[in-house]
Amino acid sequence: MLEKEQWKGFKGRLWKEEVNTRDFIQQNYKPYDGDESFLAGPTEATNKLWGKLQELQKAERAKGGVLDMETEIVSGLTAYGPGYIDESLKDLEKVVGLQTDKPLKRAFMPYGGIKMAEQACQTYGYEPSEKLHEIFTKYHKTHNQGVFDVYTPEIKKARHNKVITGLPDTYGRGRIVGDYRRVALYGIDFLIQEKLDDFAHCGSGSMTEDIIRRREELAEQVKALKEMKEMAAIYGYDISEPAKDAREAFQWLYFGYLAAIKTQNGAAMSVGRVSTFLDIYIERDLEAGILTEEEAQELVDHFVMKCRMVKFARIPSYNQLFSGDPVWATLEVAGLGTDGRSMVTKNCFRFLHTLENMGPAPEPNLTVLYTEALPENFKKYTAKISINTSSVQYENDDVMRPVWGDDYSICCCVSATQTGKEMQFFGARANLAKCLTYAINGGIDEKTKEQVAPKYRPITDEYLDYDVVMERYDQMMEWLADLYVNTLNLIQYMHDKYYYEAAEMALIDTDVRRTFATGIAGFSHVVDSLSAIKYAKVKTIRDENGIVVDYETEGDFPRYGNDDDRADEIAVWLLGEFLAKIKKHHTYRNSEPTTSILTITSNVVYGKATGSLPDGRKAGEPLSPGANPSYGAEQNGLLASLNSVAKLPYEWALDGISNTQTINPDALGHDEDERINNLVQVLDGYFEQGAHHLNVNVFGREKLIDAMEHPEKEEYANFTIRVSGYAVKFIDLTREQQLDVIARTCHDHM
Amino acid sequence: MLEKEQWKGFKGRLWKEEVNTRDFIQQNYKPYDGDESFLAGPTEATNKLWGKLQELQKAERAKGGVLDMETEIVSGLTAYGPGYIDESLKDLEKVVGLQTDKPLKRAFMPYGGIKMAEQACQTYGYEPSEKLHEIFTKYHKTHNQGVFDVYTPEIKKARHNKVITGLPDTYGRGRIVGDYRRVALYGIDFLIQEKLDDFAHCGSGSMTEDIIRRREELAEQVKALKEMKEMAAIYGYDISEPAKDAREAFQWLYFGYLAAIKTQNGAAMSVGRVSTFLDIYIERDLEAGILTEEEAQELVDHFVMKCRMVKFARIPSYNQLFSGDPVWATLEVAGLGTDGRSMVTKNCFRFLHTLENMGPAPEPNLTVLYTEALPENFKKYTAKISINTSSVQYENDDVMRPVWGDDYSICCCVSATQTGKEMQFFGARANLAKCLTYAINGGIDEKTKEQVAPKYRPITDEYLDYDVVMERYDQMMEWLADLYVNTLNLIQYMHDKYYYEAAEMALIDTDVRRTFATGIAGFSHVVDSLSAIKYAKVKTIRDENGIVVDYETEGDFPRYGNDDDRADEIAVWLLGEFLAKIKKHHTYRNSEPTTSILTITSNVVYGKATGSLPDGRKAGEPLSPGANPSYGAEQNGLLASLNSVAKLPYEWALDGISNTQTINPDALGHDEDERINNLVQVLDGYFEQGAHHLNVNVFGREKLIDAMEHPEKEEYANFTIRVSGYAVKFIDLTREQQLDVIARTCHDHM
Repeated sequence: MLEKEQWKGFKGRLWKEEVNTRDFIQQNYKPYDGDESFLAGPTEATNKLWGKLQELQKAERAKGGVLDMETEIVSGLTAYGPGYIDESLKDLEKVVGLQTDKPLKRAFMPYGGIKMAEQACQTYGYEPSEKLHEIFTKYHKTHNQGVFDVYTPEIKKARHNKVITGLPDTYGRGRIVGDYRRVALYGIDFLIQEKLDDFAHCGSGSMTEDIIRRREELAEQVKALKEMKEMAAIYGYDISEPAKDAREAFQWLYFGYLAAIKTQNGAAMSVGRVSTFLDIYIERDLEAGILTEEEAQELVDHFVMKCRMVKFARIPSYNQLFSGDPVWATLEVAGLGTDGRSMVTKNCFRFLHTLENMGPAPEPNLTVLYTEALPENFKKYTAKISINTSSVQYENDDVMRPVWGDDYSICCCVSATQTGKEMQFFGARANLAKCLTYAINGGIDEKTKEQVAPKYRPITDEYLDYDVVMERYDQMMEWLADLYVNTLNLIQYMHDKYYYEAAEMALIDTDVRRTFATGIAGFSHVVDSLSAIKYAKVKTIRDENGIVVDYETEGDFPRYGNDDDRADEIAVWLLGEFLAKIKKHHTYRNSEPTTSILTITSNVVYGKATGSLPDGRKAGEPLSPGANPSYGAEQNGLLASLNSVAKLPYEWALDGISNTQTINPDALGHDEDERINNLVQVLDGYFEQGAHHLNVNVFGREKLIDAMEHPEKEEYANFTIRVSGYAVKFIDLTREQQLDVIARTCHDHM
Repeated sequence: MLEKEQWKGFKGRLWKEEVNTRDFIQQNYKPYDGDESFLAGPTEATNKLWGKLQELQKAERAKGGVLDMETEIVSGLTAYGPGYIDESLKDLEKVVGLQTDKPLKRAFMPYGGIKMAEQACQTYGYEPSEKLHEIFTKYHKTHNQGVFDVYTPEIKKARHNKVITGLPDTYGRGRIVGDYRRVALYGIDFLIQEKLDDFAHCGSGSMTEDIIRRREELAEQVKALKEMKEMAAIYGYDISEPAKDAREAFQWLYFGYLAAIKTQNGAAMSVGRVSTFLDIYIERDLEAGILTEEEAQELVDHFVMKCRMVKFARIPSYNQLFSGDPVWATLEVAGLGTDGRSMVTKNCFRFLHTLENMGPAPEPNLTVLYTEALPENFKKYTAKISINTSSVQYENDDVMRPVWGDDYSICCCVSATQTGKEMQFFGARANLAKCLTYAINGGIDEKTKEQVAPKYRPITDEYLDYDVVMERYDQMMEWLADLYVNTLNLIQYMHDKYYYEAAEMALIDTDVRRTFATGIAGFSHVVDSLSAIKYAKVKTIRDENGIVVDYETEGDFPRYGNDDDRADEIAVWLLGEFLAKIKKHHTYRNSEPTTSILTITSNVVYGKATGSLPDGRKAGEPLSPGANPSYGAEQNGLLASLNSVAKLPYEWALDGISNTQTINPDALGHDEDERINNLVQVLDGYFEQGAHHLNVNVFGREKLIDAMEHPEKEEYANFTIRVSGYAVKFIDLTREQQLDVIARTCHDHM
């Protein structure tokens, strides 16, 4: 059993026998059921640094969204010397480390795709390096090139027609959460030793391809760990050994995360479940009298400030999908242990409190792992923060804990993974609404008129027959699931080959569990359309070639989002059927297939590419996001809407079911106390039914309209809203997306 | 069915329906059973160019073995502008194209390993490029780095102690023979089209890793084909379409080969079986009256001159293994068709005749596919050439044809592969002699005293007991075979990943057969040692730690090489047992395991690393090469020696059984006619017994000694000898290797 002087006062054995952060947490954390009155305001240093950072953010917005960009240096752990928010204030920074040498300067990351990296430069007026162009076209192949080398014409066509969409084939796939806490708890040297031990025991000697690949991956992980030490040394830190106090714990952990964001540009680069872990260090220091509450909060504030600074160079088409420059630096608080103890610590309060100390912000993507059993004080505090900032999301710990245990992290917007024990092959989405139009039109895309899917028999009836449509839809979904899984298989293969996440995987167990994440777009529209066909009369409107381009629906029909089982059962069927079809197929590295219903802001882009549907949604209109009911469908108030979504079994969509709701403050209550109590009740009731996720926005439509028209107003500078699975500064959205958000149901009654 | 105007006069259908060079040859070649009287001498152009090249070769030798070297440009198909033997004589060159921009200038080839490439530069006084160093260490990983990332400590130790040795882990594995004739017959555009068709039909849609890899390989092949066109365009040729006459056929075919030697630096870079193919074009042109015999011979001479110019940058340790700068530009003549017709054409004479027109030379590695059924005139001519030049090797077409058909090529020194339908994973050798000492010493290396193999029970008896030794040896060989196959598995994996032979594989069928070549070193010494233990009394001599370091053998024992079944049956057993142990294991890409008994000149290096053996060979002395009997063991003349080797079943060593013999001219006969007839008889008799290969040297020991002492004499400038599996200029060998050659048995009676 290992013993380290830095561990003085820490209890437990197992985590000293093996790398086991969870055991360390369970043996040492101190649940807190008090209220927020202990919290400290921002220090002078925090105010200065945050003030500086806000200036930089303003300058960034003024420059069209990008403040500065690297073109000559390929991002890497040791590519730069030290960088600070402000060179003259660097002694104030309690947690140091930037992605590049300057704040908000975006790194050049070509491994996912040189074209994308160069296009990002050009988009913002930067000239990409000729030398690097030569290197990444002539000598080193990128992930993107690998993928396009092997795509079939069918895949390319499906991708081009956006029936599969948002694929991570030009940049990092993201969604891998290293257990960055390990850097603090063990120090790098021990982690290297453990990986070398794994290397020594990798395979019984028979060199199959699986074993060879794993051996090479381990070698790359060890190199990454060694480079992390060099990276920290650039900032004057030696992270060979465990962190000896809270400040080092924050700094060491952040270095782990910094290694990830210096080497990968995945859409989602989560921080993970760090608050309770870090609280253990703070508590030890508080008890030892070497840290004050003000200093503790300062560490949290500075750490969070760093998470607010994470940036990647993106291209316009990416920004359309994921609007407002999100990075999903997702960070969790709360949850229960599997022993039933609340894992809420003072630090969970401190992380939420950053939204007060430094105002609302989209990043880190603060996520409360919710259960009715959380301490009342905490539930009220988080409801209060939600109401005031609209910057928090909630996920149901009671459905996730049985699947992932009590040390999972959210690896993207809403998807859970076991921290340090699992990785995910991210796979974006299949557009099931478009698939429905293909089923009706025999595989012809109603927008491009291309034959995208196989030439299955089209429906030629004037009025749609439910049984006929269901048969055709089943067949077309079968085709789509097959194509989709195989597209992802080759994307994941090439990503492993050309853009392996060595730094993140170095902080994850060698015997890693792998999930294969698929996703659904257009969910509510398919449900409502099938319901319309079943319960009303849907007439097809055809173009001159007989292709159905629109529908006239006569009569009323039940819609998803009203707690009406007739529609909601179609929703449950759709989810189950799609997953079953996905599961039929071979998945890369025998990963476990999962699916999700979450579409981020991509619902706007997906909608643009999708024709009219029998539910009344017209061609080009946005799809409703995630698992949300369709705009205007919800007629029976917030609770009925939540009830509908809650019927979707989380077990069938382990990658997540995202639901975003906006409540008018007046609908929630007449004063703050009433609002807080009501929101807590809404959350308790919703999650008790087994629902997975809820984004809570508390504001009225008028505020959105005013912010859209007057973005220059000071009060809107940090006006943050929750969209599907993440938070965003409203003024950073495109006008089109702002209009979409405004169009969403804003519940004015419960 | 494709029709091309360039094919006017060519017969057959199948080769027009699909890429099938063999069918084209069988339908169109014209067997020739006449004598050599038709042959033409060198043209003035040939003399001028060859004279120039000899000057360059002299200058190269004077500069220590390397005339010029690239350091700034990475070799590639289009890395250079055009290059000629002599810029002022370039119009004389009937076949153009150099590896770099200057004759004998060696290219910089880092993909196999940047360290090796840089060390090669430094060895010869060149400064490697810093920019390329950065690219191939920081951005692009090489084959060598991949291999060393995954090696186990056990493999490293076995490699370091040379019980497995000569592994292709720092440079190209070579041994892949593209069907370069396809470039001439079909032109590049059709070949691209065929590969695109294969790509379209690659996999049924389920993207398993095998299918994804194959799709990516096909994409790389298509890119290579397109680049071949660009490469030819640099020299002013458009090779999109088939060659329209003999000159174009030679040129097109050479461009195919040039693509291989510009991109790969394998130990063996064979040209293949081209003579009969090219004869078809010559015959058509001769008949059409657009080519004379002089011009035909000139094409052959100039093509061969290009093969004599192939060079790679090597490091000292490589040169020790493969002395005299060989490249195994192996090129075959003769053989029979499966229909029994002789495939000897006038062109087979012409290729042998290059050794007269331009004197003896080690390259191309001229190989006669021999069978008694070859036309007498040809047999006599080849025997004459052998006697005069010692530059020809013979391989038994009667044992190879049943296995590989009638269109195989020799892909290295002696190993056959089906041209255009097969590739080989080259795997060098396991030292079975050293393995015997490990069996006796319980896995301890007698030279380094390291525990290399597992700690099996050592033999502690003073006198070796045959049954005990055999039991231990069986166990140790089991260990070695396992380790060896797995070492090769990971080498081949990394080679495919980091140094894939796109240009060669582009000229091979997509549905390729893959063999997994292993090899045996120290063969005869194990046989004789086991025979000594069985039939004589072998006493162990131990050092102070009880490790056996020498042997005293009392009494006589039968030795391999004397047609004595008591020894020869041990030889057969050893081969069969080793192959059986190899075959037990999983092999990369489910390739077919084969083995060989051929060691090139590496017998000297291997011997240095091998301790004393019970057969009387002392520590450090060279092993006998290939399947040759041990030096001094042969007591009963050439025929008895050949009879022993012929007992080894070729079917068990499909990668080849190399045998090198030197005969004193006087032993062969008193005049040229007698010598020719006797050599033909020797070959007929040897091969009739099923033997595989024979290198024939005809000279006395005195000549070797004189050449060693007086290398400056003009007569020795091109003095070529056959060593194990290749030919070499004697004066290019190290003194140590010259002494080894001199020590070999020189038969002075039949």
